[in-house]
Amino acid sequence: MKLYTAPTGNGRKPLIFLHILGVPHEVHMFDWPTKEIKQEWYLELNPHGLIPTLVDGDITLCESNAILQYIADKYDTENKFSFGSEDPLYWQAQRWLYYQATQFSNALSGLLFYKKFRPDDAGLIEKGFDQLYKVYGVLEKQLAKDGGKKWFVGDKFTVVDLAFAVGHYRRIEKTKGSKFDIPDFEKKYPNVDRWYNDVLAIDGIKEGFELK
Amino acid sequence: MKLYTAPTGNGRKPLIFLHILGVPHEVHMFDWPTKEIKQEWYLELNPHGLIPTLVDGDITLCESNAILQYIADKYDTENKFSFGSEDPLYWQAQRWLYYQATQFSNALSGLLFYKKFRPDDAGLIEKGFDQLYKVYGVLEKQLAKDGGKKWFVGDKFTVVDLAFAVGHYRRIEKTKGSKFDIPDFEKKYPNVDRWYNDVLAIDGIKEGFELK
Repeated sequence: MKLYTAPTGNGRKPLIFLHILGVPHEVHMFDWPTKEIKQEWYLELNPHGLIPTLVDGDITLCESNAILQYIADKYDTENKFSFGSEDPLYWQAQRWLYYQATQFSNALSGLLFYKKFRPDDAGLIEKGFDQLYKVYGVLEKQLAKDGGKKWFVGDKFTVVDLAFAVGHYRRIEKTKGSKFDIPDFEKKYPNVDRWYNDVLAIDGIKEGFELK
Repeated sequence: MKLYTAPTGNGRKPLIFLHILGVPHEVHMFDWPTKEIKQEWYLELNPHGLIPTLVDGDITLCESNAILQYIADKYDTENKFSFGSEDPLYWQAQRWLYYQATQFSNALSGLLFYKKFRPDDAGLIEKGFDQLYKVYGVLEKQLAKDGGKKWFVGDKFTVVDLAFAVGHYRRIEKTKGSKFDIPDFEKKYPNVDRWYNDVLAIDGIKEGFELK
């Protein structure tokens, strides 16, 4: 099994998951940012020229959250970090993985896009923050349920928590110290903050974030 | 089974899928656009206030492509429009469903966002088109494989084709006759154009697009 990736928001998801699962794999780590992902040999694997890509035998797979689900189904057979497809929680995991890939990622990449290309357009930046606050509001509400849920789905740390935690880490990494960071985050989203600290305490996660 | 939806890009996906599958279901059709989806009763079902939402017994599910997959797994048991999870094509379907929900939808919603809020910012609009052209280029390449693939994954019309076709229809619906439409589409993307006409010829699809 070979993973083509880099230490970015999406690239880290399968990288860290394989690390904490302890599944043998090879990593092709791109020197980020790179134009290599636009070369023909890589576009054959990933036609949009994105990371990550997983090649496992005959299967070549793109899209970080589809890769997470694939690894879970094939290699997390005891469902340590996932749910079996007969478990109703399986579908809640799918739904949150899509929410992470769509609303969460869009809100973050929208704001980072304005940071890069329209840093003085106050109206756009306000709209960007509105979206991001809305998404974090949804996460806060989910994690505040039942007096404070420890994890997003069910009662264990799963690929859903991993996907959101990697996205949250990426946001901090890309906005810290700038006007694009969220001030007083822990006061605005206390349950997200608590949950994130619990994620960082999971065996292998901090190491996973250091992989380069 | 009850579907909360509206005739939009994401809302039509499960609506049309249930229609062509012929599974009995109830539809709560919102009068679109509506502020109802921001009311507390609906936010309990869908915390971001988006459509669609599917309620099937104890399962409440958000995210249109997760819903498509759920319906496929539970009600398309003969895999007429999907693949069984033991089939390697199952993972290719997952990967393309994610690509539709992320890159395709982002590119389209980005352009529609500029159309609404920054209609005179030529630089932003150019970036929006670049993204959309890139995504359509990926679709064209996929559908041009092996001398012209009839469907996205495998050799049958599946939920993947449905998701892209609904998105493509939505793009046309929202941009036709404006400077945000793609000129000479059928010359730029002949395989996408051919494929789309094949989708429209599938039993029940045209009727599905008329559901309101």
